[in-house]
Amino acid sequence: MPSVIKIAFIVVALAWPAAAQQTPKETPLVIEKQGSFFVGGHDIHSETLSTLPAYAPTGTVTVDQMYVRFQIPVNAARHSITLIHGCCLTGKTWETTPDGRMGWDEYFVRKGHSTYVIDQAARGRSAANTSTINSVKTGKAPLDQLPTVFAAGHEAAWTIFRFGPEYPKVFAGMQFPLESQAEFWKQMVPDWSASLPTPNPTVSALSELAIRLDGTVLVSHSQSGIYPFQTAALNTKGIAGIVSIEPGGCPAAGADMRPYTKMPILVLFGDYVDQSPRWAPRLKSCKEFVQAANKAGGNVELVVLPDIGIHGNSHMLMQDKNSLEIADWLLGWIDRQIEK
Amino acid sequence: MPSVIKIAFIVVALAWPAAAQQTPKETPLVIEKQGSFFVGGHDIHSETLSTLPAYAPTGTVTVDQMYVRFQIPVNAARHSITLIHGCCLTGKTWETTPDGRMGWDEYFVRKGHSTYVIDQAARGRSAANTSTINSVKTGKAPLDQLPTVFAAGHEAAWTIFRFGPEYPKVFAGMQFPLESQAEFWKQMVPDWSASLPTPNPTVSALSELAIRLDGTVLVSHSQSGIYPFQTAALNTKGIAGIVSIEPGGCPAAGADMRPYTKMPILVLFGDYVDQSPRWAPRLKSCKEFVQAANKAGGNVELVVLPDIGIHGNSHMLMQDKNSLEIADWLLGWIDRQIEK
Repeated sequence: MPSVIKIAFIVVALAWPAAAQQTPKETPLVIEKQGSFFVGGHDIHSETLSTLPAYAPTGTVTVDQMYVRFQIPVNAARHSITLIHGCCLTGKTWETTPDGRMGWDEYFVRKGHSTYVIDQAARGRSAANTSTINSVKTGKAPLDQLPTVFAAGHEAAWTIFRFGPEYPKVFAGMQFPLESQAEFWKQMVPDWSASLPTPNPTVSALSELAIRLDGTVLVSHSQSGIYPFQTAALNTKGIAGIVSIEPGGCPAAGADMRPYTKMPILVLFGDYVDQSPRWAPRLKSCKEFVQAANKAGGNVELVVLPDIGIHGNSHMLMQDKNSLEIADWLLGWIDRQIEK
Repeated sequence: MPSVIKIAFIVVALAWPAAAQQTPKETPLVIEKQGSFFVGGHDIHSETLSTLPAYAPTGTVTVDQMYVRFQIPVNAARHSITLIHGCCLTGKTWETTPDGRMGWDEYFVRKGHSTYVIDQAARGRSAANTSTINSVKTGKAPLDQLPTVFAAGHEAAWTIFRFGPEYPKVFAGMQFPLESQAEFWKQMVPDWSASLPTPNPTVSALSELAIRLDGTVLVSHSQSGIYPFQTAALNTKGIAGIVSIEPGGCPAAGADMRPYTKMPILVLFGDYVDQSPRWAPRLKSCKEFVQAANKAGGNVELVVLPDIGIHGNSHMLMQDKNSLEIADWLLGWIDRQIEK
């Protein structure tokens, strides 16, 4: 009889989707206030808005604004958290994971922090400027005026996001929910950032947001990893802390370090970094930045997750199967360094 | 003394922003479950994903998927509501209004309905396909292969959205919060729909969503006004009702009416329609559709808001100052016709 019972148990376990096993039924989420708004943006005149008769070619459009969606819990902690996605993605990055588990956007609210999720300028719900496509199409501008817009293919993204050394090989112990990769690929969108001014308009919008929020932790990822540093260099006002997750770049060690001494900073990397020719040099240069910032009087920490006993994390660690374990660790860091 | 008191009262009233007067402090919002996911989409191969050395030109991307964000209240009503935005906009349409009042997305949840807000295929968080821009840029395809993508300028949109007869004139009694128009213009995004297959991939995605939700009211607007009808023509399964707000078009009166006899249907128009050369013919043709559908045995209603005593509404009636009054009326219609 015991063997029969054991078999039945296994069958039931297999029939349950992974998400149901890992996400216990939650108590209702109680929200003091939620909503969305835009920050930044400016008006431009264009003669090539449209090639269709139903829409006039000439007129004014607003560009470079940043979409922000927020939720404020009852009795919110002093400092809010602002979530800034990376390349080829949108604010969806932080929402429900590809395999249906709770995203950090909701988890942080449940843990008492007001949470602001943005779409970078020219991405997602923040408008791109498509006028030059029509300028070229109608012969008013040469080919090289076309925007520089790229999409990351699944195969290239596989390596960049460190699901494995190359498509479709998988690193041993990988925590990304690859069984739900089809849902993840749907999150990816074309990236217009190479067509935008430098620094990215998202940076000044983040500064405006931080000042408005009067104390927010800027949590960035990958391509946007550098944005909170650029925001602090612009104005440290309102920035309670910086968490740069797997940044595409850290400030140069020779740069003016003073802005980075004004708030606690965490640079966070996942696993398999030493096996990635793309990421290993970035980790190295971030270590140099951390050393320089601390020498200048900063409170800057660099953590590589395997070094604190958390293994198997991809570049998309906010969606990995242990994403809430990492969120808990991160909240602990915020409590120790910022909330106090 | 009374006159002094009266003056003080007027000063206080003027100092309050309009939103504060109209939106009383709400009780906390209690959510059983919230999250986001994608519906639809398929993989394509491209040789022109990128012109940048950091991203490979060749690979697979997923396109035509539809982003969906949802909130389920505790003890939800039997039927959910799916909110489908119109031209040159995203799901933001239904969120916080330009002047900071509660959007229908939250209001319907507070009134007990699970609410699903989508971004149309190739809009907002649903990826557009930008490969042909790079094909043309690299000389691999002729100019006419560039996508047809347009933006509505403020001036043209002013007339289309019936803020007034022409920019910047305002219709008498206008309910749109024009003092916050700068925030509204930031909501507008380029529209790729003319580059998409017909019917728009959003239609099959809506069908998949309706079947999954097993009874949802498809609430569409403007450009997407026709989508629920196209969805019903594809498959009526899961569609509990249709609310088409200011549709750019209704089904032709000569079309097969059978799909439109399977669920209650409401076609809703705002004010000033007879003063708009763009909208007056659309209202007329929708009336012909309603007559034909009812003759075929349908339960189809067409309401022009001034006819029921609600005045001053623009094309963007879900953002007008009386938006929650209209929401209440709409919920009444849903209760009578669908929830019962």
